Parts: sequence; structure tokens; C-alpha cells
Amino acid sequence: MIAIGERINGMFTDIKNAIAEKDGEPVKRWALRQLEAGADYLDVNVGTASKTPADAVKWLVERVAEAAPNAAVAIDSPKHEVMKAGLQACRDSGIAKTMINSTTGQREKLEVNFGLAKEYGASVICLTMDQRGIPNDVDYRVEAAANIMAAAMEFELPTESILLDPIAMPVKHAQEKIGFIFEAIRQFTLICSPPPHIVVGLSNTGQGTTQKELVNRTFLVMAILNGLDAAILDVCDAELMHAAITAELILNKQVYSDDFIKAYMSRAR
Amino acid sequence: MIAIGERINGMFTDIKNAIAEKDGEPVKRWALRQLEAGADYLDVNVGTASKTPADAVKWLVERVAEAAPNAAVAIDSPKHEVMKAGLQACRDSGIAKTMINSTTGQREKLEVNFGLAKEYGASVICLTMDQRGIPNDVDYRVEAAANIMAAAMEFELPTESILLDPIAMPVKHAQEKIGFIFEAIRQFTLICSPPPHIVVGLSNTGQGTTQKELVNRTFLVMAILNGLDAAILDVCDAELMHAAITAELILNKQVYSDDFIKAYMSRAR
Repeated sequence: MIAIGERINGMFTDIKNAIAEKDGEPVKRWALRQLEAGADYLDVNVGTASKTPADAVKWLVERVAEAAPNAAVAIDSPKHEVMKAGLQACRDSGIAKTMINSTTGQREKLEVNFGLAKEYGASVICLTMDQRGIPNDVDYRVEAAANIMAAAMEFELPTESILLDPIAMPVKHAQEKIGFIFEAIRQFTLICSPPPHIVVGLSNTGQGTTQKELVNRTFLVMAILNGLDAAILDVCDAELMHAAITAELILNKQVYSDDFIKAYMSRAR
Repeated sequence: MIAIGERINGMFTDIKNAIAEKDGEPVKRWALRQLEAGADYLDVNVGTASKTPADAVKWLVERVAEAAPNAAVAIDSPKHEVMKAGLQACRDSGIAKTMINSTTGQREKLEVNFGLAKEYGASVICLTMDQRGIPNDVDYRVEAAANIMAAAMEFELPTESILLDPIAMPVKHAQEKIGFIFEAIRQFTLICSPPPHIVVGLSNTGQGTTQKELVNRTFLVMAILNGLDAAILDVCDAELMHAAITAELILNKQVYSDDFIKAYMSRAR
């Protein structure tokens, strides 16, 4: 699984304060801690923590690069100028592997973000929705996904640089619609060969229940069965990571050993 | 999920000793403890713990009935005379709801066990294999399952009294074949409408790893996504039961509430 660590995000108080006070320590600490826990990418998200988010994302990326110059970074913003500033900061800081988090499927959004992806050699998380808004069924998600993959080919982006996001919703508010998401994931794997990556923002799933971690973990395992191979998640939740590793082991995507968790984690470090 | 508690089994030392010493207490204790933990059926299995297994199964069933006269019981034996003795003991002890665990799909086995099922009003776990031996692919399992369902119709057994078992193997020894099992489960749901129940003997799955519970739990969640709705398992493993409840919640098969685990468990008791 491509594990994208969610913790460097201005919605968390410690990161919000770090941005306000220009205190790099919390950012560096979370960068190292998440990499230690098995993160493949570090998501960097200013959120609403700054009135000058393009400056703030640059500052965050520079702190990450100081702590972990070999880390891969996902820039998380809906704003073009913030995305561009983040990717440029990665380039200037020597961070080679980057991801755009995220674009929606409208033609004009794809043009802008696929343009950035080409310019910076970045992967792109693509939400499978377009001008019609949040999808309410499987077919809409798959149609949006197919349009996105067609556009990626047109822009000559390799399939493996695209991560399709079926847009997972909270079980609390959309219990009857979660089944759509698993079926959409299954159908995404059939869109092209090799299939694109498939990603979810996991932490929304269990939101509002007393069993948030359990819901997130269970959702992730089910999604992996159907073809999900990436997630934006709390990589420091060891039970969550172990569940993902075990799901991949059961599906023969991890090499078996009797103590496979230990083997996997020592490889991650 | 139909949870079939595995613990009253002569392969466990305390039950083996209980049978040898005619000490009913451990049997009664496990009956109550498993029901408290959410068991829908109590599996009763003499195993190799007695040279007179037909007598031993009768004795076990009587002890279960003393402790829990309203319990449902699965008689677990490959031997016809033991199965018959167990079902008769249930009837004589006032246990109304029974299950045959298990038959294979050979015509002569189905005739014998479906005959017992009709005579005693029992459900039947059917291993999806026949005279050709252990299945090595999806198609064989589905073919065996279709033959079993056709025979069930011929014997006028209701679909909901059949539990198809795709025969789960240990990840340790058959890692590359586990994917077959999930696909077989998915296809079993398409054989007839309403679909038959689908069951696995879960505890084999993680056998031999240092993470047995984690593997069993992860396997179960994945299988539930594809249509599994029953398992022979350690119902006293709370994390396992919680994972199953959560998987069903995510699939909209359990009523949502913020504290859904507590709500479910209080209903079970």
C-alpha cells in the first residue's frame, strides 16, 4: 500500500501553532515519526491555518526537507497557487518525489493539474467527480474515472502516476451509500491495464462514531480486497497499518513469513 | 453474521478432560460464556477425545442443554452415527435449532446428510468439494456449490438452511490460493436468489503465524465484503467479533448508532 501520512495539516492545533509561530520543530517531528511508522508520502496541508497559504506551504515543505530530504511529499490544497508554490518548494528543497492532492475531474481542473503534474513530474490524486458535484452512485464514479484516465493519456501522464479517489463518505452520515464505494473501487481496476492506483482519504470514514479507529481499519481492509492500493491515513495508528499489511499478505501482495508484521516494519525503516 | 462458537471441542484439553472425567462444568461454562459473547450456535465436537464418540456427543449435548436450554447447537462430526446421535440428543434435550457440520458434496454424502436435515429440521454446512478432493480453484468450488444447491432443492430443503463453505486454507501454507476463496464467496452469492448462507471455519486461516488473531480478523472482514454471513470462530475474541460487526455496519447490514458495538452486544445478551 502507498501510505500517505496525514499529520502535517494545519487543522491539527500543533501544526497550526507551528505555522503561526514559525516553529519548525513539530513539523520536523511529525515528518520523522510518520516515516518511521511506514509513510511512503508525507501529506502537507496548510488548511485554514494561514492567510498567506502559498508562503505557509513553502515554509512547511522546507521544514520537511530539513528533517527528511529523501521523503516524498504530497501537496494538499484545492488552490492552484498553493499547489504550484508547494511543488516549487519541493523542487527547490531537493524533494524529488511529489504528489498533487488533489484535482476533481472537470476538464479545466484536469488541464491545470495535469499541466502541473507534467511540469513537476508529480503523481496526481483525482477525485472521481466533476461539475455535477459529489457522486451518488457507482456509475457516475466510474464514468468520471474513465474520463480522467482518458485525459491522463491525452496529457501523456503514465497510468501509474494517477491515483483515483472514489470519495469515501462517513459511515455515520451515508451508511447506505458505502457499498457504492467498494463496487466503484472494483470497477476502477478494470478501466485500464495496468490499472491506476486507487486511494481514499480514510479518516472521514469513522468520523463521529465512538469507534473511529475500528471503522477506519475495517473499511480499509475491505477496500484493499477490491483493489485499493493507497490511502491518506494516520500512519501512526499501528493497528491500522498492521491491518493493511495483513490484508495485502492475505491477497499475496506481501511476502509471507511467520512474523510478517515485524518483517514488513523493519523493511519500512 | 451467524456466529458459530468453536470452543466445545475435544481437541481443547479442558473439554477432552471433561469428556474423560464426565465433568460437565467446563462444557456448561463454555456454553454460557460463548452465548454471552454473541454466539448464535454452539458447535459441539467430540473430535478424537473419546472411543465412543456417539455416547460422548450425546453427553456433551445434554450438558449444553442443562446450561442453556434455548441455545442452538451445531453437531460437528464426519461420522454418520455421531451426527445422528448428536441430533437425536438435541431433540431429546429440547434443543430446537440444530445444524449439521458438515457434509461434502458427493451424492451419497448429500443423500445421507440432507436426509438427516429433513428428519431433524437442521441446517447443513456443505463443504464445496466432492469425490475429486480439495478444490484448487474457483470454478471447482462454484461447480460443487451449484450441485449442492440443486440437490438441496431436490430434497426440498429451504435455501436458507444451507451454508456453503468454500474451504479456507491457512495463509501460511496456501498464500497464493486465498484469493480463490474470496472470489468463490462472491460467486456463491449469485448461485440462487435468495442466496444461500456462506460460512468458513475461520481459525485455520492464521494458523502457524505469530499474528493468528490479526490474520483471522482481517480474513473475516474481507470475506464479509464478498458475501460471507456465517463463521465457525472464537466468539470470545472480542476484537474479532467487533471487526465482524463493523464490517456488517459498513455494508449497511447493522443499524447505525454512534456506539454501535455496545448496542449490538447488549442486543446479543
